[in-house]
Amino acid sequence: MLLKKEIAQQPDVIRRLLDDGEAATAAAAAAIRAFDPVFVCIAARGTSDHAAIYAQYLFGAALQMPVMLATPSLHTVYGRPPDFSKALVIGISQSGQAEDARAVLHDARAQGALTLAITNYQDSPLAGAAAYHLPLLAEEEFSVAATKTYTAQLTVIAMLATALAVDEEMRSGLKKLPGLAKESLDLCEGIGDWAKGYRTMDRLTVLGRGFNYATACEISLKVKELTYIASEGYSEADFRHGPIAVVQRGYPVVVVATQGKAFATMRDIFDMVAEKGAQTLVISDDDDLLGDATQAMRIPGAPEWLSPIIAVMPGQVFAMRQALARGYEVDKPRGLSKVTITE
Amino acid sequence: MLLKKEIAQQPDVIRRLLDDGEAATAAAAAAIRAFDPVFVCIAARGTSDHAAIYAQYLFGAALQMPVMLATPSLHTVYGRPPDFSKALVIGISQSGQAEDARAVLHDARAQGALTLAITNYQDSPLAGAAAYHLPLLAEEEFSVAATKTYTAQLTVIAMLATALAVDEEMRSGLKKLPGLAKESLDLCEGIGDWAKGYRTMDRLTVLGRGFNYATACEISLKVKELTYIASEGYSEADFRHGPIAVVQRGYPVVVVATQGKAFATMRDIFDMVAEKGAQTLVISDDDDLLGDATQAMRIPGAPEWLSPIIAVMPGQVFAMRQALARGYEVDKPRGLSKVTITE
Repeated sequence: MLLKKEIAQQPDVIRRLLDDGEAATAAAAAAIRAFDPVFVCIAARGTSDHAAIYAQYLFGAALQMPVMLATPSLHTVYGRPPDFSKALVIGISQSGQAEDARAVLHDARAQGALTLAITNYQDSPLAGAAAYHLPLLAEEEFSVAATKTYTAQLTVIAMLATALAVDEEMRSGLKKLPGLAKESLDLCEGIGDWAKGYRTMDRLTVLGRGFNYATACEISLKVKELTYIASEGYSEADFRHGPIAVVQRGYPVVVVATQGKAFATMRDIFDMVAEKGAQTLVISDDDDLLGDATQAMRIPGAPEWLSPIIAVMPGQVFAMRQALARGYEVDKPRGLSKVTITE
Repeated sequence: MLLKKEIAQQPDVIRRLLDDGEAATAAAAAAIRAFDPVFVCIAARGTSDHAAIYAQYLFGAALQMPVMLATPSLHTVYGRPPDFSKALVIGISQSGQAEDARAVLHDARAQGALTLAITNYQDSPLAGAAAYHLPLLAEEEFSVAATKTYTAQLTVIAMLATALAVDEEMRSGLKKLPGLAKESLDLCEGIGDWAKGYRTMDRLTVLGRGFNYATACEISLKVKELTYIASEGYSEADFRHGPIAVVQRGYPVVVVATQGKAFATMRDIFDMVAEKGAQTLVISDDDDLLGDATQAMRIPGAPEWLSPIIAVMPGQVFAMRQALARGYEVDKPRGLSKVTITE
């Protein structure tokens, strides 16, 4: 099973990135510092879009840099690219084949923007369209559901923010990442035992906030890609504004709540959905919350800004276990191909 | 039934806005021109967030202005607001009570940003936090599910873009809006007859692209708020990247496809889901596409940039009819209140 293997490779990929990716990161950081962008725009789709969401929070919190997500159809459908001449424009794509992200980089570069591609392939169209390229160094990912390239994208973004912030605490946090990733995966061992109890579940909500809003989106997508059920990721704040109406007794909700500044509001939404009788599947490093959960998925304690890289792992394993329990093909889900080229 | 009444009021609200809202719009447009923002940031939640998405496409296409959606937790949870000193920052909230949007405006104003609130209440905290206020003039909305305030938000955004673009074609398009809205609502009459056939549907996907990506998100939310089913809105481009795996024979998909630049790609995704045996519920002004649909929801032809204001209406009526067919309370869905204050 390729997916299982690729999930297991994540600590090694992260370690390799930290060891071998530093020079490229430093060069990109120097160019960004010299360009001094007023804002950042990121073009990405699917899983890569969740890495872009992580960058929104990390670049905001660490660098006070506003980050927008691109609206590619303005480039490819309407032929009216927004003015990115004072922006850093980043394209993120595992394959580097994403045509719409390439079009955004192409237009931005013509306008004088600073451009950067984050892909697993140096010779891809996306990398070719950008002035700078940060490789994922993840080796080929064969499974349709992206796992190691997602955590590699997050790691590259974390490395870039660290280089730009010139922050010793961030630097030393990063060094612990491969070990934390290993520990997180080891803690996933038990998920196979209870996950099959959810094999008839046909609907799932995944909640996060702040840094782990990206994690909620990504876990939701992984479950949907692998099991075809109606799985939705939300910021807990958006969830309160309407979608919470769906929660009834027995409704399954994954709550991603790591210790840090977003914890209190995640604890609060946990209490709200638990009160409504939801089944709570909790990914956390907090003993009390894990103790109150219907199903606990423990992760090691980590700095909040790095927690998305390790908090997604139990979600990846849960999604894979769900697919296996249902007898589905996990490496190539129906109707999907590894590279999707949208214009 | 308040919801039915408020849906029916939309053409009048739009007409009132065009007549009585022009002075405020002109003042805000003059201030924006003088400030000359490098980018725009919009803070909003729920339905108002879909108005923000509409603004992303309209300000992009008409003004080449980059528009980002705010990440409120950077303000309220992390205390690390991004640098908005060169930005126009807009808060959108029906009630004007949205605490997180207010916090974004407050931080942005302190940084020297130009700030603007779009609400239904002149004396609300959000209006008070901003340098400029554009009122929705929609009279009180009693129903929990927002309808007339949503189309009013879109109309205000369309008026602002028109004032900034100084474009005669846009100006004359706007004038037709009340008539188009009336025509669109009249065409919704038949929806009650067939919508009850979907009363056991437990899952729905709504697809749009470009200007009508916002419409897809909003129709999806309306259905979810009123019927509690798993309803999801997507850009058709994102949908191809994974979520399309959910489509099987009989799966219901709402396709919002109005004539214009995004039509071809919407026609293509229609063919893809139809090929998989989906039930297609089509909102369109295109005869051929309507003819190929499982259920046709015709809207009048309109300029593409204004089509979201009228294309959402059949979706509102469909959502209401679904709730009625299920015997649900439509004015106050379970677990929701009209004003949600998230921090």
